[in-house]
Amino acid sequence: MVIIMNPDATDENIKEVIAAVEGAGLKAKVMEGASQKIVGVIGDKTRLASVPIDAMAGVEQSVAISKSYKLASREFHPMASVIDVAGVKIGGGTPVVMAGPCAVESKEQLFEAADIVKAAGAQFLRGGAYKPRTSPYSFQGLEEKGLEYLAEARERTGLRIVTEVTTVEAIDRVAHYADMLQVGARNMQNFGLLKEVGKCGKPVLLKRGLAATLDEWLNAAEYIMNAGNPNVVFCERGIRTYETYTRNTLDLSAVAAIKHLSHLPIIVDPSHGTGKWRMVKPMAFAAIAAGADGLMMEVHPNPAKALSDGPQSLTPENYQEVMRGVQKLAVFMKEENIVPMDI
Amino acid sequence: MVIIMNPDATDENIKEVIAAVEGAGLKAKVMEGASQKIVGVIGDKTRLASVPIDAMAGVEQSVAISKSYKLASREFHPMASVIDVAGVKIGGGTPVVMAGPCAVESKEQLFEAADIVKAAGAQFLRGGAYKPRTSPYSFQGLEEKGLEYLAEARERTGLRIVTEVTTVEAIDRVAHYADMLQVGARNMQNFGLLKEVGKCGKPVLLKRGLAATLDEWLNAAEYIMNAGNPNVVFCERGIRTYETYTRNTLDLSAVAAIKHLSHLPIIVDPSHGTGKWRMVKPMAFAAIAAGADGLMMEVHPNPAKALSDGPQSLTPENYQEVMRGVQKLAVFMKEENIVPMDI
Amino acid sequence: MVIIMNPDATDENIKEVIAAVEGAGLKAKVMEGASQKIVGVIGDKTRLASVPIDAMAGVEQSVAISKSYKLASREFHPMASVIDVAGVKIGGGTPVVMAGPCAVESKEQLFEAADIVKAAGAQFLRGGAYKPRTSPYSFQGLEEKGLEYLAEARERTGLRIVTEVTTVEAIDRVAHYADMLQVGARNMQNFGLLKEVGKCGKPVLLKRGLAATLDEWLNAAEYIMNAGNPNVVFCERGIRTYETYTRNTLDLSAVAAIKHLSHLPIIVDPSHGTGKWRMVKPMAFAAIAAGADGLMMEVHPNPAKALSDGPQSLTPENYQEVMRGVQKLAVFMKEENIVPMDI
Amino acid sequence: MVIIMNPDATDENIKEVIAAVEGAGLKAKVMEGASQKIVGVIGDKTRLASVPIDAMAGVEQSVAISKSYKLASREFHPMASVIDVAGVKIGGGTPVVMAGPCAVESKEQLFEAADIVKAAGAQFLRGGAYKPRTSPYSFQGLEEKGLEYLAEARERTGLRIVTEVTTVEAIDRVAHYADMLQVGARNMQNFGLLKEVGKCGKPVLLKRGLAATLDEWLNAAEYIMNAGNPNVVFCERGIRTYETYTRNTLDLSAVAAIKHLSHLPIIVDPSHGTGKWRMVKPMAFAAIAAGADGLMMEVHPNPAKALSDGPQSLTPENYQEVMRGVQKLAVFMKEENIVPMDI
Repeated sequence: MVIIMNPDATDENIKEVIAAVEGAGLKAKVMEGASQKIVGVIGDKTRLASVPIDAMAGVEQSVAISKSYKLASREFHPMASVIDVAGVKIGGGTPVVMAGPCAVESKEQLFEAADIVKAAGAQFLRGGAYKPRTSPYSFQGLEEKGLEYLAEARERTGLRIVTEVTTVEAIDRVAHYADMLQVGARNMQNFGLLKEVGKCGKPVLLKRGLAATLDEWLNAAEYIMNAGNPNVVFCERGIRTYETYTRNTLDLSAVAAIKHLSHLPIIVDPSHGTGKWRMVKPMAFAAIAAGADGLMMEVHPNPAKALSDGPQSLTPENYQEVMRGVQKLAVFMKEENIVPMDI
Repeated sequence: MVIIMNPDATDENIKEVIAAVEGAGLKAKVMEGASQKIVGVIGDKTRLASVPIDAMAGVEQSVAISKSYKLASREFHPMASVIDVAGVKIGGGTPVVMAGPCAVESKEQLFEAADIVKAAGAQFLRGGAYKPRTSPYSFQGLEEKGLEYLAEARERTGLRIVTEVTTVEAIDRVAHYADMLQVGARNMQNFGLLKEVGKCGKPVLLKRGLAATLDEWLNAAEYIMNAGNPNVVFCERGIRTYETYTRNTLDLSAVAAIKHLSHLPIIVDPSHGTGKWRMVKPMAFAAIAAGADGLMMEVHPNPAKALSDGPQSLTPENYQEVMRGVQKLAVFMKEENIVPMDI
Repeated sequence: MVIIMNPDATDENIKEVIAAVEGAGLKAKVMEGASQKIVGVIGDKTRLASVPIDAMAGVEQSVAISKSYKLASREFHPMASVIDVAGVKIGGGTPVVMAGPCAVESKEQLFEAADIVKAAGAQFLRGGAYKPRTSPYSFQGLEEKGLEYLAEARERTGLRIVTEVTTVEAIDRVAHYADMLQVGARNMQNFGLLKEVGKCGKPVLLKRGLAATLDEWLNAAEYIMNAGNPNVVFCERGIRTYETYTRNTLDLSAVAAIKHLSHLPIIVDPSHGTGKWRMVKPMAFAAIAAGADGLMMEVHPNPAKALSDGPQSLTPENYQEVMRGVQKLAVFMKEENIVPMDI
Repeated sequence: MVIIMNPDATDENIKEVIAAVEGAGLKAKVMEGASQKIVGVIGDKTRLASVPIDAMAGVEQSVAISKSYKLASREFHPMASVIDVAGVKIGGGTPVVMAGPCAVESKEQLFEAADIVKAAGAQFLRGGAYKPRTSPYSFQGLEEKGLEYLAEARERTGLRIVTEVTTVEAIDRVAHYADMLQVGARNMQNFGLLKEVGKCGKPVLLKRGLAATLDEWLNAAEYIMNAGNPNVVFCERGIRTYETYTRNTLDLSAVAAIKHLSHLPIIVDPSHGTGKWRMVKPMAFAAIAAGADGLMMEVHPNPAKALSDGPQSLTPENYQEVMRGVQKLAVFMKEENIVPMDI
């Protein structure tokens, strides 16, 4: 950490800052600038987490240099991690695909979707049993019944199951049925939930918050890992911007950024990321070309009858077309050794 | 709801849209535009909540006309609501002040802060016992011990207690000690938490999410009210924008907007809203002049020793100066009949 | 400037950074951190403006400490500036009001508006003769004819004239008729225009760009001042955020920020800042309470017939009501010595 | 356009709205909703551009249905346009590459860069002679001398020249030397400039504004086209969001959106879009996979010595590596018939 003093900070101010730094067991070095003094802090910055340096008299600003997350950081873990989800590897160089309806609506709908998903070559079936919805009057999901259908669809197809958990109370139930637990965008900083999924023993898919910075996202993963669960996969799903044509703005540069900052895998959800089924194909291709470790996509046997997120769901035909391109692209990049990211 | 068809939508497409609308028990009227047809939907729109009109063939977009929230809406409740919190009225024309440290750090710190807060004329003591923090390594709060100190500070000063609840599991405990429960920005769409605080029997202070729209915020209140708790007060605390000079961008126009859209009171938190103690005074004055029903401010006996949010905490002297102006301003506006908002 | 090296930067990397700093005539000091080295730069940072430190091998990031603007900075000019516009002082403690229609539409409309504006006690008549419009098919303004009407309205009422200039070519013409030139939001970084209005001899009202940071805004003022014109007044008019209920998000904290960072006056435009006439009154009051040096508001004799910005224009009656409150509030704050901002 | 009336709008209000619509030569149809009336407008909406429907008594909001741009719209021009720039085709299915330094710094630097750019297979040399810079004290470009060097580099290499024009006054000069004129992000709504480049006879590369919506961007193209110049190419270069890790947030979904809404080609600038050279490669690959018609990238013989934008410039080696992948990817997608976007 570097502490920048005001041009008019007194010697007394600087002494107090030094005392605060040393009081936390760290070393301080003062450097004289042209118009301002700077205090460099040497040692483990997390010790200063509870000292409000910025509020001290004479301090203009403090600049964090080292990261506040460690377990999620590539700095402390240079090799890319591969997360094993019931035998399927995420992060090993071959992208995985998670597909299915936004919400589980009925056994028939789910089985039909699962068959389509399986046939085109995905590894995971997605589908929400607990749905976080903006309005309390919107469809909230089939809850445990939905989980049962998901488990039956796994029996039927061999697909792994990834589904969202929205409350601490439901973690055990979801972990009982699912292969991977999803923490949704609205819960990315629900720290109580993060701590508990950190103890559940199942891999976690951590979606980026609606307007989360990369730093907050990495720290959210740190909460899960710090609670004992090292198996975290990031999922970029678009961020909130001023643009209204798309539902969110898909931030594909997050793929490159996360791969640089962390050893954990990252997949991309172009369905939520754009909110328009027509844009899923180009963004799915782009995600693969950017080096994503996988995709999550919404497919519905009949999008126009979907109980949620119909406009962004692919029809079975569109989905097969996307999969055809995605698979060819992934194989091509591997064979030609086209590496998007030099870490 | 108005459904706008593509210029190239077929008669078949339009028939299907009409069938979907009528299938939900609503009426549809078709109108011919210059280049496009429009289908008007007549009846209670919430019945269409689960029908993905936008995904139907030939549909360009659908435009919601009526609101998705009802209990929180001024349309259905034209008179402004006054919320009674243990005898203190919020919304009755006289602004309330909630002040105190960001976090409860010790009995001494809290008592000292409470005495300062009380002396300058506030009605509520704030202070976090459960702290949602970006990093798992930051100070997380004193938890139940903090709640006990808050209750003791109430005995000592007569101030009402408002404090944050971050998990469903802690609701009963927080409701046991506090007069008002705060739902924080990061939990504004933690729907499980909203439903449960809707059953707790204590008034709720609902902070705006980091990047929440007004519509999402109003729907979050609707979750609480729909669960049985009509006593909700909004708190504007700044939104996330591209500007980095301030911690957040305080959106004072939200005061006017919420008063127009809802009958519920709204207060303003200029401490989180700006992140800089120096800006708390002008923004507190501005909030009162805009018609806010109250303020929430961070005060610390010694901000430079605060375990969290030091840079935005007022010193006792600054706080008294802010209170002096706020009180004079509020009295002046009432006496002179300066009404910021004509509903 | 502080240069933070990567944890794996080599001694060679550090030597090259030092050489680059010294090559620009500055001094460099190296400080050893726990895991990273830091190079402090001593001397006038602007000398480094053309050296891409961030691109050098081994550099993680550089952090600017001193500001890139000087003439606009309060650091180099601690006393608040008062700008004289044809005898009216902006910044002297008494807020000014600039009001009038968005666009000059006809002599009758302008005269009617001017009479209303004058009667309620404003000092400036605003009105656009050159209108920057999103679509080329929207009304683009009366151009020189509009300027003539404005000058006639000045004769009629004694109000000062402030009007927008959108092209270098029109500067002389606008400066001939107007007392103050407005640079609009869309042109805040039209550097060619800024340089030329810096030579025109008339005071300039500089609106904040649609999504401009405070730093960019201050630098835009620096362009004008550096070209020889010290008479710049800022105008906050709302910034672009994700919220769609309001046309823009009015950032009233900019008033406090600009007063802290600069000696120049700042006024607020709640009409563009909200896009809704209903919100102009509360935001006008809030701006005054926050310490703004004035207001700019849209008034139209008949908003429903306005050729642009009708929804945000006040009727004559609303305008008088706003003015009544604004004037009382301003007098009250002065008499009671309620100072929003301690610099 | 659909006009939504307030629930409490009177019959008189509705009559006035109908009169306003009919007064503009359009037809109005009233539709009764459950709680609100709706007025549908039939005919060419641009006739209503100057009528402030939203400000009329009883109107809640109006919703535009048809687009405000026509010449740029795919609706009126279903076939994709191919823009010919001195014999090089943009938009014909084979992506073009524009590369070079951010700024022309010297003849030697430019020639060295041009040789590198040419050798790796690009079609265009980019380089700024007029540089819009946030601070007036930063390097502003070599101006006409820079244009001369660019023309000499064209002689030397056969590359086409694309360079930015920032003022109306410089258009003739830039058009004299360059093959294609670039309108930069800060000038996207400099309407005076747009109109004049619309008359210059050379193709225009129109960068997206810092925080421009797709609709504003398309309308900016409409200004150029409406002035007589049909040869416009869009360039996505990142938008401003809350995220600070990247310089901008590259919005690759804009590629798909523009291709759906317009017949004009679109290229992508991952250098400005990310601000980090390390992210240029993955984002360049992603842009091609998303269906972009080309790339613009910053290359510098020695980025650490660049006078601007060093941190985002590729070294010659990195650039060759990016080009190798881009070219293979483009060929692969064409041969395998992987079509990102179904219009």
